[in-house]
Amino acid sequence: MQAYCQLTLAQRQAEYAALQERFATYKSRNLKLNMARGKPGKSQLDLVNGLLSVLTEKSDFCADGFDARNYGELSGLPTAKRLFAELLGTKPEEIFVGGNASLTLMYDLISKAYTHGLKTSPRPWCKEASLKFLCPCPGYDRHFAITESFGFELIPIAMTEGGPDMDAVEEAVKDPAVKGIWCVPKYSNPDGIIYSEETVRRLASLRPAAPDFALIWDNAYCVHDIFSEFVPFADILTLCREAGNADMVYEFASTSKITFPGAGVSVMATSEANQAYLQKLIAIQSISHDKVNQLRHVLFLQDKAHTLELMQRHAAILRPKFSAVLETLEREIAPLGIGTWRKPQGGYFVSYYAMEGTAKRALALCKEAGVVMTGAGATYPNGHDPEDSNIRIAPSLPPVEELEQAMEIFCICLRLAALEKLGI
Amino acid sequence: MQAYCQLTLAQRQAEYAALQERFATYKSRNLKLNMARGKPGKSQLDLVNGLLSVLTEKSDFCADGFDARNYGELSGLPTAKRLFAELLGTKPEEIFVGGNASLTLMYDLISKAYTHGLKTSPRPWCKEASLKFLCPCPGYDRHFAITESFGFELIPIAMTEGGPDMDAVEEAVKDPAVKGIWCVPKYSNPDGIIYSEETVRRLASLRPAAPDFALIWDNAYCVHDIFSEFVPFADILTLCREAGNADMVYEFASTSKITFPGAGVSVMATSEANQAYLQKLIAIQSISHDKVNQLRHVLFLQDKAHTLELMQRHAAILRPKFSAVLETLEREIAPLGIGTWRKPQGGYFVSYYAMEGTAKRALALCKEAGVVMTGAGATYPNGHDPEDSNIRIAPSLPPVEELEQAMEIFCICLRLAALEKLGI
Repeated sequence: MQAYCQLTLAQRQAEYAALQERFATYKSRNLKLNMARGKPGKSQLDLVNGLLSVLTEKSDFCADGFDARNYGELSGLPTAKRLFAELLGTKPEEIFVGGNASLTLMYDLISKAYTHGLKTSPRPWCKEASLKFLCPCPGYDRHFAITESFGFELIPIAMTEGGPDMDAVEEAVKDPAVKGIWCVPKYSNPDGIIYSEETVRRLASLRPAAPDFALIWDNAYCVHDIFSEFVPFADILTLCREAGNADMVYEFASTSKITFPGAGVSVMATSEANQAYLQKLIAIQSISHDKVNQLRHVLFLQDKAHTLELMQRHAAILRPKFSAVLETLEREIAPLGIGTWRKPQGGYFVSYYAMEGTAKRALALCKEAGVVMTGAGATYPNGHDPEDSNIRIAPSLPPVEELEQAMEIFCICLRLAALEKLGI
Repeated sequence: MQAYCQLTLAQRQAEYAALQERFATYKSRNLKLNMARGKPGKSQLDLVNGLLSVLTEKSDFCADGFDARNYGELSGLPTAKRLFAELLGTKPEEIFVGGNASLTLMYDLISKAYTHGLKTSPRPWCKEASLKFLCPCPGYDRHFAITESFGFELIPIAMTEGGPDMDAVEEAVKDPAVKGIWCVPKYSNPDGIIYSEETVRRLASLRPAAPDFALIWDNAYCVHDIFSEFVPFADILTLCREAGNADMVYEFASTSKITFPGAGVSVMATSEANQAYLQKLIAIQSISHDKVNQLRHVLFLQDKAHTLELMQRHAAILRPKFSAVLETLEREIAPLGIGTWRKPQGGYFVSYYAMEGTAKRALALCKEAGVVMTGAGATYPNGHDPEDSNIRIAPSLPPVEELEQAMEIFCICLRLAALEKLGI
């Protein structure tokens, strides 16, 4: 195998014909393979089935004097707040326990900022003339979609090896229309980058022109290490407080990829002052979230040490899948010089950078052959990747054999698209 | 016992002194009794504990081909939609299954109308110059609080024996700023009124000036009969469709008072066109609600007939509590002519009308003696009962013995307040 840029036209044509033949064979199999979403596979779900038996009809449903079955305790069972505070390194008083999705907590925070304003807001965001939000990219499409839905102008911020480009961030927050930034500080989606200490410190110390700038800290993969033991992280709430920004940060996490994606527990950590302000607004919307499920999670996960043990069992299932992706890329793509990728140590994705201008075409080919991927461009604000290059690979759902097949097809499509771009 | 209005001043003074003595005795006991909220009692919760054992680690988690544990199926498991469609008499396609609270679904509907607009909206409600909402009262404080929170002017509509005063409603909706009405059609909160056929028909046939007028149909007590078998109700979606108002109505219900208040399943029924529109907005906020809990509910409740059997067991627990309230009022208050009340056949409340101008005082006295009630005025828009008369009694939480004691104290307080009003 030779780097594609060194091939003659005739060589490229021969290569293209050979690949087309392999592509046709796969196409004829009518496969249905999915690497689109960070969706845990069945064996991961089965790891957690015990969750459903820790609380049964003969149980004591009381925790700290509250009957988990009844109404009340808006911010969550105290025992659940203690568990999440231990996992995130915050205080229980800084924890709000939500329903089954941190996405909903994040949406609701932006929505309430829009309709009522944050504690730090001079007015509700819907009364502002212009709204902008910083989007480190590639990033998480569902984050971007929330702010897009509320009419924000999405400002792309480049990702570096250490997280968002902080020079760009510090410059951008001088604009008072910039109301916040989406961050995934550990194993960023999709790059799998862990923000450096310096990046985290500079984020915590921002001096935004907007008094109600929101540092959205989506710690979605806080205990989701794959190729190592638990990698510790600093408590962003403490760092912000120490930098005089106590009320600037909102941290989110959930058990979606610890227990069940559809039936977990979510959490928002923020200053006690923010909690007091927000809970007054949330009290209009909710009497309490599902405390039976909170109690179930406390009984099942127990504490941080026990949760980390479970995460290592998830890691054991995910490792061969990530390895299959990385090895296939190494074997099929590396020698051709038509793409680069990151080797994440945790999280849920492999971020692939195709030859400029070929991501869309490659994924269209994948679709023809029955391989579903996150759409090209999805990792950029408004779905627009200016280089048409980044592709998010989600290896968690398919069994290894299917994944290997999907990756074979994916690599053929990348090669076909690259050859078309180089000219055939 | 003699009607208070027929007493001489001296008789009133003697009566007041005697009651004060009884009041002091109760006060000295430092009681803590709660009739504030429609919160099921422990014995009702225990009825339902089997819910926690229908789905265990050995279960098949698939329903209609979907693994309930994983992400996906935004609008709910098909099997859950079928169950709720049967309960409400709608089509499964008209059902959206939410989290543990219909309150949240209602808040989110108003919130999305405010930020994005309804399907029928010319513009988001936040862009309107003026917003008004019709509030049949006495009514549910949490309904009123939602629209108050979004800055609506709350328009009181009197309740009649057959539901909201429809002449007033039909007149009010001529104002294009009037964007909707809060309705609890079966066993209204707090009066326990079942809307008459004529009221329901006139509501379904409204011709509001606002094209995006929302008929909020909170069927919270749809199967919550206490003194009878199941009382059937018409499908409001069908009635609205037949009246040319297919997209005007949003019906809500939940299992909060069927299974667990804190850990049930909620539902919104509306036209398929509204579902399509709203689910596009909801998809930004959520990937799916807790489908494991949905499946648990389907397995436990099974179908309408089985659910109605369970509701009769709830009724058997609630009947003596409602009877205790009604009998105490009959014995202690009726002969005095200082109040009136309704005798509900279902729902969660007894609505008491104190002598004008005495509700607040009576409840302040209750509080002194350790009896917590819903605040006076709470059943009116902005917490203001112009007659200072209506008091919502919630008999479900305390055991019967405690309830009897609480009602004794409540009646003493009503009598003290009435005597003070009459002059002592």
